Amino acid sequence: MRLVIEQQTPADWPEVWAALAPAFRDGRSYPVPRDVDEAGARAYWIKPDGFNAVARAPDGTLAAVYYLRPDQGGPGDHVCNAGYVVAPAARGRGIATRLCLESQERARAMGFRAMKFNLVVASNEAAVRAWRRAGMSILATVPGAFRDPERGYVDAHIMFKNLIE
Amino acid sequence: MRLVIEQQTPADWPEVWAALAPAFRDGRSYPVPRDVDEAGARAYWIKPDGFNAVARAPDGTLAAVYYLRPDQGGPGDHVCNAGYVVAPAARGRGIATRLCLESQERARAMGFRAMKFNLVVASNEAAVRAWRRAGMSILATVPGAFRDPERGYVDAHIMFKNLIE
Repeated sequence: MRLVIEQQTPADWPEVWAALAPAFRDGRSYPVPRDVDEAGARAYWIKPDGFNAVARAPDGTLAAVYYLRPDQGGPGDHVCNAGYVVAPAARGRGIATRLCLESQERARAMGFRAMKFNLVVASNEAAVRAWRRAGMSILATVPGAFRDPERGYVDAHIMFKNLIE
Repeated sequence: MRLVIEQQTPADWPEVWAALAPAFRDGRSYPVPRDVDEAGARAYWIKPDGFNAVARAPDGTLAAVYYLRPDQGGPGDHVCNAGYVVAPAARGRGIATRLCLESQERARAMGFRAMKFNLVVASNEAAVRAWRRAGMSILATVPGAFRDPERGYVDAHIMFKNLIE
């Protein structure tokens, strides 16, 4: 599926929220309360100090979204952090990997030198695989960093990729 | 030196800012712009979702400050992040280690299960030693994660300690 990836605009929000809500309600991947309301989700997702993107199928359907932002401030702001959500209907087609690679290009263009994920739930094998395919590698595993609604405390990976040279 | 450690109040801010400013201006430890203004420093330092503390000498002089906050939201909010600044006149007396240990007790009392530092500049050996003495260990080293004003890109450690059992 071809994807058109563009900067998110305020008019996109209702569709973005429709894509985020099932991922957040699921409670298995994102460090967001499962019962987060729309305003809370918006405050978490939209990064005024970074970049928000929407990826659409050729028919205009929203397939996925991502954000990019500096992982730290000041003398740490050359490493970016990113987050991705693929809409339920668009899953299982390798979109996460493609989106991650596209976001790395954009991050480079924005001047970032590396990309870092702070919390990739270790039991979320599809995600770990997708990010590995996009060149991210596991820098460390934080013991018990995430509360899975069924499994309880599970480990989370910190993943990293150098974007220069 | 005995320290009295209490929750920071609004009246403490001028002294807290006087302790933070030299550390931020120095540009060698904190992910804050060196030229941050007072309002920016306040927004960075005061954690409405966490806890801010001031440590005073028996004569009332402010010796050090710290913050505690959830490192992530929702299902990741049982791991805390913390930051410490020792006032210039109080350095070299082991205060950082003591403060870190005290903050771990407080974190446990607040329900946190672990403590995580996201950016400890690797060349800042005094800091790494202080945190090790407080039981923190290096989970990973992020290549080139910090721009030192003289050395350029330097590595930064992610440090971690389990607070339970």
